[in-house]
Amino acid sequence: MSKTIVSTAKKKQKANRAKKVGLPAGSLVYFGEKEKPLNIEVITYNESSCQFKKVFSAADALNTIGDGYITWLNVNGLNNIEEVKKLGAYTQLNNLLLEDVLDTEHRPKVEILDNHILVIIKMLYYGKDGQLLSEHLALLLGSNYLITFQESEGEDVFEPVRKRLQNTETSFRKRKTDYLLFGLLDAIVDNYFVILDKVTERIEVIEDEIIAHPKEDMISEIQFLKKTAIFLQKSIIPSREVVNKIEKSPHWLIEVDTKHYFRDLHDHTVQIVETLATYRDILWGLTDTYMGAMSNKMNNIMRLLTLISTIFIPLTFIVGVYGMNFKYMPELELWWAYPLVWGIMLGISVAMIFYFKQKKWF
Amino acid sequence: MSKTIVSTAKKKQKANRAKKVGLPAGSLVYFGEKEKPLNIEVITYNESSCQFKKVFSAADALNTIGDGYITWLNVNGLNNIEEVKKLGAYTQLNNLLLEDVLDTEHRPKVEILDNHILVIIKMLYYGKDGQLLSEHLALLLGSNYLITFQESEGEDVFEPVRKRLQNTETSFRKRKTDYLLFGLLDAIVDNYFVILDKVTERIEVIEDEIIAHPKEDMISEIQFLKKTAIFLQKSIIPSREVVNKIEKSPHWLIEVDTKHYFRDLHDHTVQIVETLATYRDILWGLTDTYMGAMSNKMNNIMRLLTLISTIFIPLTFIVGVYGMNFKYMPELELWWAYPLVWGIMLGISVAMIFYFKQKKWF
Amino acid sequence: MSKTIVSTAKKKQKANRAKKVGLPAGSLVYFGEKEKPLNIEVITYNESSCQFKKVFSAADALNTIGDGYITWLNVNGLNNIEEVKKLGAYTQLNNLLLEDVLDTEHRPKVEILDNHILVIIKMLYYGKDGQLLSEHLALLLGSNYLITFQESEGEDVFEPVRKRLQNTETSFRKRKTDYLLFGLLDAIVDNYFVILDKVTERIEVIEDEIIAHPKEDMISEIQFLKKTAIFLQKSIIPSREVVNKIEKSPHWLIEVDTKHYFRDLHDHTVQIVETLATYRDILWGLTDTYMGAMSNKMNNIMRLLTLISTIFIPLTFIVGVYGMNFKYMPELELWWAYPLVWGIMLGISVAMIFYFKQKKWF
Amino acid sequence: MSKTIVSTAKKKQKANRAKKVGLPAGSLVYFGEKEKPLNIEVITYNESSCQFKKVFSAADALNTIGDGYITWLNVNGLNNIEEVKKLGAYTQLNNLLLEDVLDTEHRPKVEILDNHILVIIKMLYYGKDGQLLSEHLALLLGSNYLITFQESEGEDVFEPVRKRLQNTETSFRKRKTDYLLFGLLDAIVDNYFVILDKVTERIEVIEDEIIAHPKEDMISEIQFLKKTAIFLQKSIIPSREVVNKIEKSPHWLIEVDTKHYFRDLHDHTVQIVETLATYRDILWGLTDTYMGAMSNKMNNIMRLLTLISTIFIPLTFIVGVYGMNFKYMPELELWWAYPLVWGIMLGISVAMIFYFKQKKWF
Amino acid sequence: MSKTIVSTAKKKQKANRAKKVGLPAGSLVYFGEKEKPLNIEVITYNESSCQFKKVFSAADALNTIGDGYITWLNVNGLNNIEEVKKLGAYTQLNNLLLEDVLDTEHRPKVEILDNHILVIIKMLYYGKDGQLLSEHLALLLGSNYLITFQESEGEDVFEPVRKRLQNTETSFRKRKTDYLLFGLLDAIVDNYFVILDKVTERIEVIEDEIIAHPKEDMISEIQFLKKTAIFLQKSIIPSREVVNKIEKSPHWLIEVDTKHYFRDLHDHTVQIVETLATYRDILWGLTDTYMGAMSNKMNNIMRLLTLISTIFIPLTFIVGVYGMNFKYMPELELWWAYPLVWGIMLGISVAMIFYFKQKKWF
Repeated sequence: MSKTIVSTAKKKQKANRAKKVGLPAGSLVYFGEKEKPLNIEVITYNESSCQFKKVFSAADALNTIGDGYITWLNVNGLNNIEEVKKLGAYTQLNNLLLEDVLDTEHRPKVEILDNHILVIIKMLYYGKDGQLLSEHLALLLGSNYLITFQESEGEDVFEPVRKRLQNTETSFRKRKTDYLLFGLLDAIVDNYFVILDKVTERIEVIEDEIIAHPKEDMISEIQFLKKTAIFLQKSIIPSREVVNKIEKSPHWLIEVDTKHYFRDLHDHTVQIVETLATYRDILWGLTDTYMGAMSNKMNNIMRLLTLISTIFIPLTFIVGVYGMNFKYMPELELWWAYPLVWGIMLGISVAMIFYFKQKKWF
Repeated sequence: MSKTIVSTAKKKQKANRAKKVGLPAGSLVYFGEKEKPLNIEVITYNESSCQFKKVFSAADALNTIGDGYITWLNVNGLNNIEEVKKLGAYTQLNNLLLEDVLDTEHRPKVEILDNHILVIIKMLYYGKDGQLLSEHLALLLGSNYLITFQESEGEDVFEPVRKRLQNTETSFRKRKTDYLLFGLLDAIVDNYFVILDKVTERIEVIEDEIIAHPKEDMISEIQFLKKTAIFLQKSIIPSREVVNKIEKSPHWLIEVDTKHYFRDLHDHTVQIVETLATYRDILWGLTDTYMGAMSNKMNNIMRLLTLISTIFIPLTFIVGVYGMNFKYMPELELWWAYPLVWGIMLGISVAMIFYFKQKKWF
Repeated sequence: MSKTIVSTAKKKQKANRAKKVGLPAGSLVYFGEKEKPLNIEVITYNESSCQFKKVFSAADALNTIGDGYITWLNVNGLNNIEEVKKLGAYTQLNNLLLEDVLDTEHRPKVEILDNHILVIIKMLYYGKDGQLLSEHLALLLGSNYLITFQESEGEDVFEPVRKRLQNTETSFRKRKTDYLLFGLLDAIVDNYFVILDKVTERIEVIEDEIIAHPKEDMISEIQFLKKTAIFLQKSIIPSREVVNKIEKSPHWLIEVDTKHYFRDLHDHTVQIVETLATYRDILWGLTDTYMGAMSNKMNNIMRLLTLISTIFIPLTFIVGVYGMNFKYMPELELWWAYPLVWGIMLGISVAMIFYFKQKKWF
Repeated sequence: MSKTIVSTAKKKQKANRAKKVGLPAGSLVYFGEKEKPLNIEVITYNESSCQFKKVFSAADALNTIGDGYITWLNVNGLNNIEEVKKLGAYTQLNNLLLEDVLDTEHRPKVEILDNHILVIIKMLYYGKDGQLLSEHLALLLGSNYLITFQESEGEDVFEPVRKRLQNTETSFRKRKTDYLLFGLLDAIVDNYFVILDKVTERIEVIEDEIIAHPKEDMISEIQFLKKTAIFLQKSIIPSREVVNKIEKSPHWLIEVDTKHYFRDLHDHTVQIVETLATYRDILWGLTDTYMGAMSNKMNNIMRLLTLISTIFIPLTFIVGVYGMNFKYMPELELWWAYPLVWGIMLGISVAMIFYFKQKKWF
Repeated sequence: MSKTIVSTAKKKQKANRAKKVGLPAGSLVYFGEKEKPLNIEVITYNESSCQFKKVFSAADALNTIGDGYITWLNVNGLNNIEEVKKLGAYTQLNNLLLEDVLDTEHRPKVEILDNHILVIIKMLYYGKDGQLLSEHLALLLGSNYLITFQESEGEDVFEPVRKRLQNTETSFRKRKTDYLLFGLLDAIVDNYFVILDKVTERIEVIEDEIIAHPKEDMISEIQFLKKTAIFLQKSIIPSREVVNKIEKSPHWLIEVDTKHYFRDLHDHTVQIVETLATYRDILWGLTDTYMGAMSNKMNNIMRLLTLISTIFIPLTFIVGVYGMNFKYMPELELWWAYPLVWGIMLGISVAMIFYFKQKKWF
């Protein structure tokens, strides 16, 4: 069973976090670990057209924003702080918030500003090599543009959104940026379901194996699942508040009609959180079951040892007696002594086996 | 002990859920697994008459709605999305909500709309083969009709309601659709009691067995009960809020008089939730008891091994001594040496048994 | 240790509950299991007089209600539904509530009605044969009468109230029905204390025994106490809300002065609930202590086995060596070989015992 | 390690509580167990003077109350109910509240009355013989007097208050009765800190011992600490609300200035409650550590048994082979057979030890 | 693995706390244990200049406060109570609050006064020798000065703040004292992250070791981590409320602009508290995994013992049989008996090994 490596990436980030201690608040430092260069995917669309291109500077990207259409700037690679700063300046984003955008360890939250809504959330997906990956994502919603800040180029969960944008029929093309925000969050939350399904399936597989063939290394598998569950809880649970706050806060950027969609999304996050909440009980119960199953397996072996020992130890004593070299052991001389001893030993064995059977020990 | 299979159906549904990722919100996809064709049971009744028939299209079904009587459309089979869409169009149901109706994994909820009340709930029952089945159910309450969406034709828990509708005397015939809604929810909640009773009974049976004759495979039985309890909690607990919200929200479709019935129903859901809450403690306690009982059983066996070993090992050593072939072993020559050795060995055995008895080890 | 049998009575009731599925809400069915006939104890009193009598029909009982005195109708035996219906009709009690009165599984609650207050509560007491019994009790408070519905004639906890009613001096005779309600609830709550005391005492007895002489069957005793604790929690905890609601709701039937008494009663229920809350921790801790004590006991035995085995196994090997029949074993010929072997064996034994002592294994 | 006996005193009190069942509410019965006679310590003081004396009746005590100075009546011994009644009559205390004063099992609470404040709290201290004692204490605050009801004469925690009253400099002499109330509660809460320190110390001592030299009887020590923790939680946690309510409720008896002191006291109770809350986790963790340590200790012993058994059992078999008396065993005749057998046995031993070392089993 | 010593310092402090019992509230006693002399670090700065100096009396320190610049008095060493009193007098600080400043065991809190804000918080850092140290810290914010009270001179976490104050560019120099307060709290909270990172790393190291090579002494390591987690929870969790209260309370000393910074800080404390909350589950899960891993290790050893015992015990019995000295044992005379016995013994061994393999016991 190949394990998805949750912890490796996190350790590095934490080490970096420690380095920041001592910098003034609002210092723009990128905490992530991926070191690919910045590139910005620009998608401009309105009801009649939709264009994709790639630019490599903030200035080029900001030039694409304009009236009459919606611009989605998908910024890949947060390590180029200068460029990110320029985007921040254009959107009049507070330095403290820009710091949060760059802090890949920041917990999910939503900031309702006068002309913007800033959403920070975790994007979870299974990477190419089957690893469970957590990527920090910031979404900045403006009146006619939406900027997403991803840790790096490469895998994300937005492919379905891109496909639908190319389709004239979809709501995306007819609606404002708030619906794009919903679409992206929806894609993220849908992926949470995918991950929960995989984790649940894995729990069920290991559960069946424990019942059928308990093995020693399953304890590390359970330990790994416990860690994954705690990791998912920490990453996902704050998302519920994020979505709820967007739904509940009145803001001119979010149309009443789109609220229904956020409400639906909120229902989904509630369902995810409830599923996560059951993991604790399931995995703790599984540990008990594992312990019980392993102990039963061991007991079976020990019972055999006991059976054989308790039968043969007395017999070995008896044959030892007649192996003694005393001069005066009258039994030794009798011709029927040897068969008698065999008879006695057989009798003892049969009596013991009978006793064990009656006690239901075997 | 034949186990009710909770998990099989769920796995399939989850696999389907994953397939939906990437579709726009409000895409109507049926997530269930049952593939029987759509058919709609139509029950029209008023105080004077009550008629049952079956139709096989949404149009036919909608034609039966009219003034002066109440129509209950019991839609079986959600996989025919086109037909469900037509029903949705008639009732002006939002696409997002129609999506919830079709999503068989959706958690129980109630939506209070202007002209409708939409209830989503889990119908739990024991199937023909003794399996515990969970079926997604949506109830859409209108002014003179009520539509129920079941995953498939076949078993449901509404048989008593159907019987009472045929009886002129019952309140159903004299009251509006809100009472029909209550009647159906009441049938569902009553069935929750049936299931809790069976689960409780099973817990008590296994508890008695653990105390009387602990066996190895009981750990998987407990594990199964734990899983069932978690499954029931997830399915049933949200129903309490559903019923509470119907009772508390003022709505023109729910008459004041019927509120009393919903209140009573709410009392029942509270009682169910409390019972469910005790399952955790009971089953965790049972695991401990099982562990203790199994360990006691093992200890009994080990004690016997210890008794026999500690008595015979020294004796075997003694007889070994006099089995040595040294030339100069003066004891061997004495005629009373052999009986003496027997005496000593007997003495040691008696002393040891006495010591064990005194220590209350046997 | 004779166990109080909590579960037997409950199983039957639950089976009955399942039978009701399919009946319309408000159907009057009696769920209890006791099958004695209805009889009504009538106690009429005012400041100057107090009379006790028994009647056997609702009509006779209702005739005793009148101005200028207070009537307490203590209805024994809920299985005569027709008679109970008549009482319900007189008091204009809703059918749904009457159903709650008859449902012996109903959780404790209070219903504040216009002219009545209906209290449903569990009466707990130790039966004649030492069983812990739970009896469903409904109290219906009217302006000049109070009706109590008990599952059956026979044991109840109201004997002290009856005695005090016969005494002219007591507050009962001078006050209204609200004080009688308080008096009856107070008697019930006082009995909760008696039960908690017995359970606590039993926990302490078993705790002392586990520390002093752990025995195998104590695990089933702990399991039984856990079940009792869960049973008590389920029966008693809702009573706190019941008493609190009576105290907090303004109602013309409850005089301001009597409110003080209900407040005092509320304090008592809070104390009971806190005590119940500690049971969980105590009993779980006790399970751990039991496990530890049993494992210590087993380890003591195993240590002895180890001591004897580790000492004698090498010695047995040595004597085995000189029991070999090789022709050329020069040691066998030496006269000092035999005593030397004894010396070596003694040396090994002493060294081992010394090693064990030093390691503090014995 | 001498154990502080928490439980003995409580058992008796509970037995007494049960006896009260059946008495009317407001019946004045003393529940405590100490049977010393009533005596009242009277302390009258104002800014210029302070006098201590002892009286033995309520009438004498009440005579000392007067204008221009403050009277602290410290009533020792609650079993003289008649005298306590007289004090109750003077202060116009409701019979129900007087009952609470006498009920030594009553949980801590505060009653804000028109002209009085009644505080019920637990006074915890270590008795002369090292026992942890819990004494029920009621404090009744009036305009120019404060009455404290202690279960018995003898040890209490008010010695520092008495000393400071004798000192003209202290705030006590300059302030009203509310400050005296604060001073007494402060002395009680300060003593809670002393007890928590001792318990914490004891936990740390046993923890160190478990790590260093796990012994069997430590499980009963942990069990005792768990019981103590539960006992402390039950006694102390309600005090937080008591102090908070005094601080928060506006009352003419409590001066604004003194509120600061109660707020400070509230901070202390919060800190105590937080410390108590950590005990559960600490002690549960300790149980696990104990189990692990004991099991490690046992495993060490078992490993030695295994080492010796697995080495010598095969060797004993080998020497047994050449102890057989078959006529045709050619090996027996060879002069190098005996040394060869020794060589083989040595080889097996070395190989096994090497194998164990490699597996890191020893 | 060198352990950070959390407990030693705490024990002493607690002992001291106990000594205070009996002193009047507001008695100024220093509870800490460090006994270095008082010295005050004075930092005065405005936009144009910044000066550091050391003074050794309160009077000298207070003289440095003046208009047109900000004074930060960093008081080291709380044991010189007279000097601390003078600072208290200057700032008109209530004696009760001054007592809290000196009480090094006081839980974190914030007091909003008319002209001051008093913050009490725990400063956590790793000392020179790798110990985790907790230092009580009080920060008193005035209009143009900020006084910090540290337990002792020496290590603190403010070095980065000092460095930035020397830099003309930083916000510190341009802003008021509220920003200095923020800067200091930010430094403390940033250090919490450092500590959490170290603890998390350590947990992950031990987790990996348990999975790979479980060893006995890891149980004490886990126990130590549990204790550390409880210690961190107690020290850190109240900080969240502290920061939240500063952010939420309107006060003329805190500018609106600075509130954003406190809000950001609050986000950080929430993240820290959430991480702390996961420790419990992680460490409890780790204990189970440790138990499972140790038990698996032991079972491996026991299985070998069982294998060898069950194979050789019957064989030893067989060779014992033919070591008997009966005169009439016909087998002994047959030339093929010896090889046959070897054959039988080989057959038994092979059959047993085959049986074990089939049962998957090895």
